[in-house]
Amino acid sequence: MNLDIITIGDEILIGQIVDTNSAWMAQKLNDEGINVRQIISISDDADHITDTFVQSAKQVNLVLVTGGLGPTKDDKTKETICNFFDTRLISNQAVLQNIEELLNKRGIALNRLNRDQALVPEGSHVFQNKLGTAPGLLLKKNGCSFIFMPGVPYEMKYLMEFEVLPYLRDNFQTTTILHRTVLTQGLPESMLAEKITSWEDALPGYIKLAYLPSPQGVRLRLSARGLEQSLMEAEVESQIIGLQKLIAPNIYGYDDESPAESIGKILTEKGWTVSTAESCTGGAIARLFTENPGSSNYFKGSVVAYSNEIKKDILGVKEELLRHHGAVSREVVESMALNGCRVMKTDFSIATSGIAGPGGGTEEKPVGTVWIAVAHKDRVVSQLFNFGNDRERNIARTGQNSLFMLRKLLITL
Amino acid sequence: MNLDIITIGDEILIGQIVDTNSAWMAQKLNDEGINVRQIISISDDADHITDTFVQSAKQVNLVLVTGGLGPTKDDKTKETICNFFDTRLISNQAVLQNIEELLNKRGIALNRLNRDQALVPEGSHVFQNKLGTAPGLLLKKNGCSFIFMPGVPYEMKYLMEFEVLPYLRDNFQTTTILHRTVLTQGLPESMLAEKITSWEDALPGYIKLAYLPSPQGVRLRLSARGLEQSLMEAEVESQIIGLQKLIAPNIYGYDDESPAESIGKILTEKGWTVSTAESCTGGAIARLFTENPGSSNYFKGSVVAYSNEIKKDILGVKEELLRHHGAVSREVVESMALNGCRVMKTDFSIATSGIAGPGGGTEEKPVGTVWIAVAHKDRVVSQLFNFGNDRERNIARTGQNSLFMLRKLLITL
Repeated sequence: MNLDIITIGDEILIGQIVDTNSAWMAQKLNDEGINVRQIISISDDADHITDTFVQSAKQVNLVLVTGGLGPTKDDKTKETICNFFDTRLISNQAVLQNIEELLNKRGIALNRLNRDQALVPEGSHVFQNKLGTAPGLLLKKNGCSFIFMPGVPYEMKYLMEFEVLPYLRDNFQTTTILHRTVLTQGLPESMLAEKITSWEDALPGYIKLAYLPSPQGVRLRLSARGLEQSLMEAEVESQIIGLQKLIAPNIYGYDDESPAESIGKILTEKGWTVSTAESCTGGAIARLFTENPGSSNYFKGSVVAYSNEIKKDILGVKEELLRHHGAVSREVVESMALNGCRVMKTDFSIATSGIAGPGGGTEEKPVGTVWIAVAHKDRVVSQLFNFGNDRERNIARTGQNSLFMLRKLLITL
Repeated sequence: MNLDIITIGDEILIGQIVDTNSAWMAQKLNDEGINVRQIISISDDADHITDTFVQSAKQVNLVLVTGGLGPTKDDKTKETICNFFDTRLISNQAVLQNIEELLNKRGIALNRLNRDQALVPEGSHVFQNKLGTAPGLLLKKNGCSFIFMPGVPYEMKYLMEFEVLPYLRDNFQTTTILHRTVLTQGLPESMLAEKITSWEDALPGYIKLAYLPSPQGVRLRLSARGLEQSLMEAEVESQIIGLQKLIAPNIYGYDDESPAESIGKILTEKGWTVSTAESCTGGAIARLFTENPGSSNYFKGSVVAYSNEIKKDILGVKEELLRHHGAVSREVVESMALNGCRVMKTDFSIATSGIAGPGGGTEEKPVGTVWIAVAHKDRVVSQLFNFGNDRERNIARTGQNSLFMLRKLLITL
């Protein structure tokens, strides 16, 4: 089944907040096999609200609406709702009692604004909101159900989990959708597409494939629908096995896993440790590891050597290497990686040295020139990259490529 | 003037990504005095796309569309666009050249899919995308302009800043809105409001004030509209001077400046240098400094000492301090900061040691316990925090508080 999500309020439209509510709702609905047809953000304008309701009711039989129900804005949206559903506001005793209890807990006396919040459109089904003063409301028109919720994220989430989703499970027929995402690295979208074209063409009709490019690489999302859960799981798994045969070295993980997490798994399993010796990435690779819980099991530390002194004093890079080859060179980055293993006593060390920009570029070494090395005890591999002009991108791509190089080394050992 | 934003693709609708693009665009458009009427996310379905275009064209004369322009098979958007605008795809030489140059830089050969990306609807105005293979496109129908951009955030941002916004300024009537944001730290919203209440009440009618709380502190946004640019600038500046008189110690910067950038300015001006010695933040503070261009002038490096061995071996923390007080203690964090200055030869050093979670907590030192120290040569100040249970938040708040502590020290010297 399909539904629309409508958010009401100015904050999203002026870019003051990012609409995280809709993404959260979409994910939960998707897990129930409910398909979100569209997500639309509109302002508090009565005509626009009504028009949007009319359009949605033509296309779907369920609409979830968030926002526009706070204590100050209340009146306008509720009035618009009453006009649309051809009803009027009446006081709801259970809602009033909930409001009184909530305010009581906070030591606040009931005022007129709060009393008005207990007014609900006559004929609506009420979902009690234990975390806030605005209730959830359900109203129907021409076979389409509209469910209204406050826009405050934790109140909306409470209502969804404990009231709305259980109601949907009981009252609507839902199709199960199964998503699995295969995470790839090291192949641009177009080359990847070429490699897997015959596999893709042979996918059964009930499995859809989407290419989702990201800074970490291209994610391949398989979405199955219409069969029994266990059948779909088996079929998707078997398709993934087919895919592995084609691009195994480029698959670093599945679903929400990050490259650093997937490396962490290998390191933990083997009992290996890693460190980083970073110049141009300035701690970004250390961050990629340490943002994951449990990373202290395999990540031991980093020397961020932004200055040549630290490269010499702490990482033991020889003065003459820096003088002869410059900090951005194969010789220096390999020395950083090898010494990184030694100084921080780890099995592996990643080193980076480059010109992130916008300053510091020369004709010979323009902005975006980056050397990456990965060392394993006394072995070292290194590679030269040229990423381009954008500082942020250069740092991000250096991080991603260095993890890709480490992973490549790990899976050969 | 009003416009609609349309995003095409499944990712938002299944909750796999949060739509940050639209919020960013809305903010930029707002700065230009352009009002976003609605933001709508739809799937790659031809009928739905066409229907949405038709609806928007009835209401506004400008529509910005993102997504659906990648090289692979899941992007049917171009075909749908051609049908809607009653045109056909033709190869664009300039786009092809741009694609070739981009692939060349990355050392990738052009294939058929890339060549197809140079196909653009006949009659479209092309905005060159220097950061990616999909160009921006402008097409008109019944007096409504549609601008298409790729959904990859940094490509969209590039196209908006360097192509689309300049085009809009030249071709559409926009009302000038002047925004200036004063960035504050260390005062909660309610206390800040109390301190500046009389200043706020005396603001002229054409200047609006908004309180924007964020993890870095409260931002005060002044928005002026309706006067000549130079008059508005002068008036807003004079209001900011009034504000400085009231809360100078809490203002850390203006507009998009980050706390690390504002510290960088002070350090550069004074010729001082800084380093970090990080345990629980795992390189996050180094990142806050090094994400800014020019940071190599004052940021020298970092030792990320995730393990006790690195705390001892590289930072010279005494074994007995670690044994008697534990790694998360005033004694250890002060030693890390003081030795950080010495080992990395900097005027200042920030040190952190704490339990980011989810594991590692004890009754005495629960998850969220964090010590921060800031050293200036042989002086050191330190503070104990307890941030709570969320790993990501613990790291972020430790970073922000350590910068706030450093700034407090810097402005007293």
